[in-house]
Amino acid sequence: MLDPSRRIRIAVDAMGGDHGPEALIRGAVEALQTIDGDFDILIVGDEPAIWRILDEIRPGPLPIFSVHAQGQVEMDEKAPRALRGKPRSSIAVCTALVGSGRADALVSAGNTGAVVAASLLNLGRMPGIHRPAISATIPTSSGMCVILDVGANADCKPLNLYQFAHMGHLFAKLVLGIESPRVGLLNIGEEPTKGSALAQAAHQLLAADRERLNFVGNVEGRHIFAGEADVVVCDGFTGNVILKLAGSIGSVGSRMAGDIIRRSLVLRAGALLMKPALVSLKRRFNYEEYGGALLLGTRGTSVICHGRSSPRAIRNAIHVALRATRADLAGTIAQVLTEQELGAVRSMS
Amino acid sequence: MLDPSRRIRIAVDAMGGDHGPEALIRGAVEALQTIDGDFDILIVGDEPAIWRILDEIRPGPLPIFSVHAQGQVEMDEKAPRALRGKPRSSIAVCTALVGSGRADALVSAGNTGAVVAASLLNLGRMPGIHRPAISATIPTSSGMCVILDVGANADCKPLNLYQFAHMGHLFAKLVLGIESPRVGLLNIGEEPTKGSALAQAAHQLLAADRERLNFVGNVEGRHIFAGEADVVVCDGFTGNVILKLAGSIGSVGSRMAGDIIRRSLVLRAGALLMKPALVSLKRRFNYEEYGGALLLGTRGTSVICHGRSSPRAIRNAIHVALRATRADLAGTIAQVLTEQELGAVRSMS
Repeated sequence: MLDPSRRIRIAVDAMGGDHGPEALIRGAVEALQTIDGDFDILIVGDEPAIWRILDEIRPGPLPIFSVHAQGQVEMDEKAPRALRGKPRSSIAVCTALVGSGRADALVSAGNTGAVVAASLLNLGRMPGIHRPAISATIPTSSGMCVILDVGANADCKPLNLYQFAHMGHLFAKLVLGIESPRVGLLNIGEEPTKGSALAQAAHQLLAADRERLNFVGNVEGRHIFAGEADVVVCDGFTGNVILKLAGSIGSVGSRMAGDIIRRSLVLRAGALLMKPALVSLKRRFNYEEYGGALLLGTRGTSVICHGRSSPRAIRNAIHVALRATRADLAGTIAQVLTEQELGAVRSMS
Repeated sequence: MLDPSRRIRIAVDAMGGDHGPEALIRGAVEALQTIDGDFDILIVGDEPAIWRILDEIRPGPLPIFSVHAQGQVEMDEKAPRALRGKPRSSIAVCTALVGSGRADALVSAGNTGAVVAASLLNLGRMPGIHRPAISATIPTSSGMCVILDVGANADCKPLNLYQFAHMGHLFAKLVLGIESPRVGLLNIGEEPTKGSALAQAAHQLLAADRERLNFVGNVEGRHIFAGEADVVVCDGFTGNVILKLAGSIGSVGSRMAGDIIRRSLVLRAGALLMKPALVSLKRRFNYEEYGGALLLGTRGTSVICHGRSSPRAIRNAIHVALRATRADLAGTIAQVLTEQELGAVRSMS
């Protein structure tokens, strides 16, 4: 349990990301300037580079500190090997800071595989959790939807999906503030007997746990954007495909719209008047804005951002890391999922 | 092989679909009025109802004939049991007409499971094909993309995906007229070693067959709408989720846009000027317009339409059925996939 008298400290991996440390540092500064409450930010990376950027930005007196790291895991490197070869890389230092209690959470826009592997290595898996999951937030016509797993596990067992449901439920409740999140199982039909062997078995586990989980049954592809569940549970293969597809809709839609608009002057005039709405709509579909993806199931809080994250996206990710820390999400997951009732479920599968 | 001197005959299941026979019959009339070439349409269903609608429409002299059927498989019925209980249902009669050679292809907007089950029963599986697949066409920013399987097989083996790739390749080439279709494997990373056990094994089979297949490697969720492959191969679970999600984008996008536009008069004025473009964009994402989904791997041609299909969608589905018949798609699939080389591949898995 977090000591309420201690200031929260968020470690930011400045070296991950496609555009180098600047977006990360600008995002950290924006977070300190705009988010309520006291917290420190530790910028982890090549210190001379960090200082140069801070010198340019001149953010004034803010609780922002640098921690040196040597090198970084590149976006195309294989995570386990890269971590062995670069034990002082920025993501290794970030996770070590959280693992040793010198920071409470970390935010990285680096190689997702490296964030997962380093978190497992330096934070450790939560007792009782078989597999950690990455949970992302995507827009719906009525708000937001948490979807997990979006890529930590390409192959899953029914018990994994069952645990993802509980972790997603706690994330939606404690971090997003949804009182009784509607949890749905992604499937290809509404009846319990529909779908893959995995989905059918997971449905049974979830339906048997309705006392603790607001399980709304199967949800189909068309229900996701329609906002018919607050949490959608699936294997990491399907979830990753959906997340990347959803993230491409904004730019594909605007390219298609552009092709149509070019056909007439009237349409072009309309588009000019509507521009703020079109930009806003495109941004709605841009999941990068929504505060990154949270790795659930390790002893700590790791927020994973898109490599192309803007300072605004990094600021939002820091906000998610703060809320997860303040709500003690990781501790609550450990507590709920090690409760004795789960022993019975575990023995079923 | 099709006798070129014989007129093509398309059987249309008038009883399937959410809105009863009218949309189906109107679509059939529109097909006969607008599609080049000689062909007959057999409307299968309750004859008094069919005649009543034809009497209302009064399409003039067209080669449209009715075939009586008793009852229909409802949308929520379990297909195998329903077919046993209703051997004279409209989908049973349609598939029997094709199975006995009295029709060349069928179009149905009924229960998808029933179309698949009745096609397997009355047309039979193609020799050498382990599992039939449903292939659908979805819009991309540069054109169209064939995706299969979208729901016939929730669980797949690597060899199934390999055969889907060949069937999708032939569909894109012979029906859509793409000279050398780029075939991609849906996965969650670009490297061959990424993804689920299924995707990794399927990648190996496909990469070993580059002489016969323009295999472009793995494609991710974000590549689908970007048009980076003409054919995307995946298991029927993931494919079904994608298809239904893609089909919901138009209405979700327009609802989100509506919420934004309502905020100001200028935006509303812009929307009014842009209305034709917005309608056209929404229609781009409406996959129902694209001629339905084709069941591949049975001895015949079955086109499956959405239950809510408009007459225009039915007309397009009839067009696809005609093109598949004229190109002898089913025969070519049988020929290509029973070639001896595939024996070697089959023994690998």
